[in-house]
Amino acid sequence: MTLRARIEHEGRPRVGVLDGETIRLHEGTIFEPGAATGEEVAAADARWLTPTEPTKMVALWNNFRAAAEKNGWAIPAEPLTFLKAPNSFAAHGQPIPVPKSYDGRVAYEGELGIVIGKACSGVSVEEAASHILGYTCVNDVTAMELLNRDPSFAQWTRAKNFDGFGVFGPVVATGLDPQSLTVRTLVNGRERQNYRVDDMIFPPAELVSRISQDMTLVPGDVIACGTSLGVLPMKAGTVVEIAIDGIGTLRSQYG
Amino acid sequence: MTLRARIEHEGRPRVGVLDGETIRLHEGTIFEPGAATGEEVAAADARWLTPTEPTKMVALWNNFRAAAEKNGWAIPAEPLTFLKAPNSFAAHGQPIPVPKSYDGRVAYEGELGIVIGKACSGVSVEEAASHILGYTCVNDVTAMELLNRDPSFAQWTRAKNFDGFGVFGPVVATGLDPQSLTVRTLVNGRERQNYRVDDMIFPPAELVSRISQDMTLVPGDVIACGTSLGVLPMKAGTVVEIAIDGIGTLRSQYG
Repeated sequence: MTLRARIEHEGRPRVGVLDGETIRLHEGTIFEPGAATGEEVAAADARWLTPTEPTKMVALWNNFRAAAEKNGWAIPAEPLTFLKAPNSFAAHGQPIPVPKSYDGRVAYEGELGIVIGKACSGVSVEEAASHILGYTCVNDVTAMELLNRDPSFAQWTRAKNFDGFGVFGPVVATGLDPQSLTVRTLVNGRERQNYRVDDMIFPPAELVSRISQDMTLVPGDVIACGTSLGVLPMKAGTVVEIAIDGIGTLRSQYG
Repeated sequence: MTLRARIEHEGRPRVGVLDGETIRLHEGTIFEPGAATGEEVAAADARWLTPTEPTKMVALWNNFRAAAEKNGWAIPAEPLTFLKAPNSFAAHGQPIPVPKSYDGRVAYEGELGIVIGKACSGVSVEEAASHILGYTCVNDVTAMELLNRDPSFAQWTRAKNFDGFGVFGPVVATGLDPQSLTVRTLVNGRERQNYRVDDMIFPPAELVSRISQDMTLVPGDVIACGTSLGVLPMKAGTVVEIAIDGIGTLRSQYG
């Protein structure tokens, strides 16, 4: 198991492995780190980058049984997805900008992210694991009042794609069993979400398999697995942390 | 006015300017072609690439008055958008694969595409023109029966994002007035769409301005302006051409 990161170091992007409070820099890529260079950066001082540069983030709606039950949503027959585009991506420690063009409520959503390691198209559930590089934390930020503002068309794209609304990191954790994980969201230090990944309707390997039937997934792409109970709007100045034991804590300030 | 293209030539991507039936290769990029190298390729023999490599295609629903009127759709208060991701992009002359994971109807949609030339965030309608590189033809292919298969969630992402469903090209035409253009779609040589761009609810400069308020647009990104009347499903083997005088003809075979 490794915790792999990308940071900006001396003006360029570098690959590192997190070891306690220290990031040890390596040659190579996030997909295949090479030899350690001997350079070290304190995690607290690092300028974190997103661990990959996805061509797309495929995100899930209604993928947790507890949320479906509480909200009265039917269990879906297939994964229900929307996209987050690269302009939305933001790294650990970067602020989430308050939209200038929208003044309604903006919510955090703590989620598990699957990071693709190998291109996959039409893979089976059994083949999926070997195409996953590892797992990351996602904050799938949402402009809640845009979703249903137009009665004829749910505006998932706008609500989910403001600059900085697709936060993920700080690392990709390899060699984890995702089903054993718990996702927690801390809002100004207070726990607001705490749910188990094994409550997913479509678990990670099945998501990779199902989505890859339609869309080729390429290295670095992220699947945001959907959220469960405890989503709330944020005020400007709110600090949100998505914490998954075994991966780490993704911290952002809104505004 | 120039017609700029990208083709694969001797194993690598090259920039060219279309002159009649000949593509003259240039140094530089599609955004800023440099000197002509003297190399020429017959357009009929070229291996066309998409003219840019967008990080996203932002596509419109319900942006033509004639279609809104015929379908009984209200005129929207704001552009209603969805995303097409890079796995969907396909060039002039490339086949559109028949999805293996979906056996319902698949439709063409002939559209005008706006190609972004300069990064823009929060630009005014007046500023938009200087951020547009030019215009291209788009075939916004759609898996029609996926859209409303789940009663709780319109599946725009899946319906629009199968590999090869985001066709655009063959060129970016610079220096055009888009409002004077007409979009025609020929299906196996028979005209099925013929509509004027000036029937748009949100015309190109307004789309760039409005979308850029929410999402930063970067060079090469494409806005697919929506389609009008005449959308029909395709059978495997169907040849679809999106023809816009002043730009050219984007040809694909489905299956």
